[in-house]
Amino acid sequence: MGAESNTDVTVDFEVDPGSYRHWKVSYDGAIARVAMDVDPNGGLRSDYELKLNSYDLGVDIELADIVRRMRFEHPEVRVVVMTSGNDKVFCAGANIQMLGSSTHGWKVNFCKFTNETRCEIEEATEASAQVYIAACNGTTAGGGYELALACKEIYLQDDGNSAVSLPEVPLLGVLPGTGGLTRLVDKRRIRRDRADVFSTTAEGMRGKRAVQWNLVDDVFPRSKFDEKIAARCEALVADAGELASGERKGVTLGKLGVESLDNGRKYSSVEVTWDDEARTATLTIEGPTAEDVALAERGAEAMHEAGDQLWALRAYRELDDALLHLRSNHPNVGLVVVRAKGDAKRVLAHDSALVKTRDHWFVREVLLHMGRVLRRMDNTSRSFFALGDAGTAFAGNLLELALASDRFYLLDDPDNVVHVGISDLSEGALPMSTGLTRIQARLYGEADKAEALVGRRDLLGPEDADDAGLVTMLLDDIDWDDDVRIAIEERVSLSPDALTGMEQNLRFVGPETPDSKIYARLSAWQNWIFIRPNATGPEGALTLYGRPERPAFDWRRV
Amino acid sequence: MGAESNTDVTVDFEVDPGSYRHWKVSYDGAIARVAMDVDPNGGLRSDYELKLNSYDLGVDIELADIVRRMRFEHPEVRVVVMTSGNDKVFCAGANIQMLGSSTHGWKVNFCKFTNETRCEIEEATEASAQVYIAACNGTTAGGGYELALACKEIYLQDDGNSAVSLPEVPLLGVLPGTGGLTRLVDKRRIRRDRADVFSTTAEGMRGKRAVQWNLVDDVFPRSKFDEKIAARCEALVADAGELASGERKGVTLGKLGVESLDNGRKYSSVEVTWDDEARTATLTIEGPTAEDVALAERGAEAMHEAGDQLWALRAYRELDDALLHLRSNHPNVGLVVVRAKGDAKRVLAHDSALVKTRDHWFVREVLLHMGRVLRRMDNTSRSFFALGDAGTAFAGNLLELALASDRFYLLDDPDNVVHVGISDLSEGALPMSTGLTRIQARLYGEADKAEALVGRRDLLGPEDADDAGLVTMLLDDIDWDDDVRIAIEERVSLSPDALTGMEQNLRFVGPETPDSKIYARLSAWQNWIFIRPNATGPEGALTLYGRPERPAFDWRRV
Repeated sequence: MGAESNTDVTVDFEVDPGSYRHWKVSYDGAIARVAMDVDPNGGLRSDYELKLNSYDLGVDIELADIVRRMRFEHPEVRVVVMTSGNDKVFCAGANIQMLGSSTHGWKVNFCKFTNETRCEIEEATEASAQVYIAACNGTTAGGGYELALACKEIYLQDDGNSAVSLPEVPLLGVLPGTGGLTRLVDKRRIRRDRADVFSTTAEGMRGKRAVQWNLVDDVFPRSKFDEKIAARCEALVADAGELASGERKGVTLGKLGVESLDNGRKYSSVEVTWDDEARTATLTIEGPTAEDVALAERGAEAMHEAGDQLWALRAYRELDDALLHLRSNHPNVGLVVVRAKGDAKRVLAHDSALVKTRDHWFVREVLLHMGRVLRRMDNTSRSFFALGDAGTAFAGNLLELALASDRFYLLDDPDNVVHVGISDLSEGALPMSTGLTRIQARLYGEADKAEALVGRRDLLGPEDADDAGLVTMLLDDIDWDDDVRIAIEERVSLSPDALTGMEQNLRFVGPETPDSKIYARLSAWQNWIFIRPNATGPEGALTLYGRPERPAFDWRRV
Repeated sequence: MGAESNTDVTVDFEVDPGSYRHWKVSYDGAIARVAMDVDPNGGLRSDYELKLNSYDLGVDIELADIVRRMRFEHPEVRVVVMTSGNDKVFCAGANIQMLGSSTHGWKVNFCKFTNETRCEIEEATEASAQVYIAACNGTTAGGGYELALACKEIYLQDDGNSAVSLPEVPLLGVLPGTGGLTRLVDKRRIRRDRADVFSTTAEGMRGKRAVQWNLVDDVFPRSKFDEKIAARCEALVADAGELASGERKGVTLGKLGVESLDNGRKYSSVEVTWDDEARTATLTIEGPTAEDVALAERGAEAMHEAGDQLWALRAYRELDDALLHLRSNHPNVGLVVVRAKGDAKRVLAHDSALVKTRDHWFVREVLLHMGRVLRRMDNTSRSFFALGDAGTAFAGNLLELALASDRFYLLDDPDNVVHVGISDLSEGALPMSTGLTRIQARLYGEADKAEALVGRRDLLGPEDADDAGLVTMLLDDIDWDDDVRIAIEERVSLSPDALTGMEQNLRFVGPETPDSKIYARLSAWQNWIFIRPNATGPEGALTLYGRPERPAFDWRRV
């Protein structure tokens, strides 16, 4: 069991219901049932077994797919019951053997992805009125309880045995890092001293005390569990009223149709190429065509009919896949050059058509999806430089890519005027995890400039864009090549760890939210713990879990 | 230069103006001048030289003493000019050799203390109207610029050479972790893309561009620098109006008069004992005596006259020193048992006397000091269990110690009724770094309970205190000894790293502020980077700094 055993696995993030190995999904009108039933031999790697409904990245990729398809393909669903197909175990959490044998980078990426999936569950509950409830019909431990915590309501079987627990600290010497600690105190608002007791009690809690402490919403005896859950589902459906009428027609998310290049991936509107030697990648997104715009302008029904071929959905699904590939399969890439090609006016027109029809459930889902992909970019630990040279179109939703980037270089060439522009989508439809818009984050100290942009819909030339505070550096035609090359070379020469830490601090200015705290406080501390000998050294608690030896700790507090 | 070279140094945190080796402080009416002039041979350890106004923990202990005494001993001061006694260098930041040869724990403690000092500088500016301005009369690099960032205004000499810079990322592979990144974007609100450029530009910035980017407030030519700074000071003094009248009479902070025990330190109202083998310590604070209360009730002038002998100032200075000793000199202690002895009614009476007279500058300073010490406790990476058994008095300001603790065990014995109570000080005078009161943090999810406590000034017996949500566990007389013993034994058996991470997440529920972000986002990432081979491995950037070899990085982003 080598610590580097994951390095030769290429992760594929595209799955579909026909390929699920670990989940059983069934639908009954407005109620969906998602049952975890992990195939022990279905792990992404062969050096561990996924016993007792424990999970690895592959299991979570399927879950993320389920959550996403639920919104697009099953818009009639109002309640999603997360439960288990295993008789004794709801979910035992992340597979320890897998964690123990993974590189540090794999662990961090795994946690980040699972965190994003759980935030997506919460967003579906809040923004799409698809309420997730956890029906914990067995042991609910660690990541299992963290999955339940992402649901709006948690019900536990009262059988004298089933408990909820976060045994990470006492048994493994690591944190419940998939949002667990944050959601205990910031979401369920369990008293922090009780959270302290709970998080250090390996066996967890059950029965009345679990209810009293708000660890679960209720407990039901085994004999009545299904019935009680069903009743709760009916009540939630009744609350949903008209929304549960079933009149919405789902939209199928088809295959992305990616072409594998020697050094990249080519989708219909997105292309990513990498140079593992130079440690750079180029991510290009092409704005909507005239036909794309014409279709969107025909209104919500036309967009609904276009379904996954609507530019905004298609391009952002592709962008999401490209980002995930970069994260997991190309760790050496330190810098991503971001380009947005096309016609700025068309981007604004497409955005405008979306905003006008955002009351339609499908359009709203498209916008929510775009927001999630952009937050995935904010939270990707690579440097992003947006390059706005000839032929680029950083406007509207594509301007978000430049604002999500660490720097935005813009060409200032009178013979080749590049335009930048904001759209109705720039002002709140695509928020960061901190709750700010990316313009608010970029102009955090220049409220007058942010104010001046509100409602402004004309395209800005380079100087105006610079005056507006949207550009990091204006470069003229003569300097462009050299200055950009040097900036890139300098960036990729710096310590990758220092850059990750720096970017995590500079990108998230201003307020924090429970979401952002999960990535800041919780994940940052977990990353530290993951490389401490007390967890992952030869005598660390995570390393020795399941073996007869007891961990040997360095007792010094730091 | 061994990585463990600091382990045999015992740090003493008590200094006084007569013992300063690194700073020259002078007073001119309402203006004080604090000049850094570090003695290269005055380091805490002998394995490095403090060249070019670089600093170690010892230098910062003196600075913290200066800032604190400025408030108590020189209340007439309205403007504090931070400058340098060195002709070319304002401050070169933390000493790299010292960092390179320090254990991880030492680095973390060093950063935490220096962060606290900088927060104290900001608090003096905001709450005590002692405005700190940085007169950067030379190179202002790394921690030097972070010190300037803690000041309200920054002025840089414009001599074609002096620059402000944060070269940590490009040169050392670590973060500007003394608040630098956070203060760039959250305090000075420099655009985050510009902060990215600045923080990766080793040579920093100077002249007009530094002003344009708001890195400094202004630049002045060398020939006019002193004159311009003097004029700015005069203007600030004029703004201060009556406050600058010089009518306030300072209060001298005398020696603490600590008695060293074999296994502890005994002060007048505080005692700390440790058991390095059991990895526990006991911190006992004794509430005010009847005489202490009588004195406080005589009013502000009487308290002012009592000066550093006023219980609230004396006891909290002692508590502060005890906490700092535990942090730096007893890393093996994982759990601190907290006891508050005395009479609960007297604590409330003393608190009440303070609140009534808080318009008096001295009383206000006493309260601000108490708040800082409690925040030091919040931010101490040890588990705290408050034990409220017979003879304890967790009321008013002493209840804050229980609420700052991870757990609060209270004896429920009809023969020995222990009382708990809140005072006027519980409702905002002693805030956490997140801006919440400790009652708000404890009852974050139980707004009704928090509301019910507002204005309640009677003493609560065990059951009432438990109902109010203030107690983690009520234990009766029969269970007390065993249950408490087991809880302590269990706690100290857990991984110290996991506990540190857990406590950092559970203690700081709710909102974040720039202050709290410094300890959360920034410090957590820095702690991670400090143990990454890219920084501190044999070929890491921090390790190799100043040597001819270039660092060799593991390029994988995580």
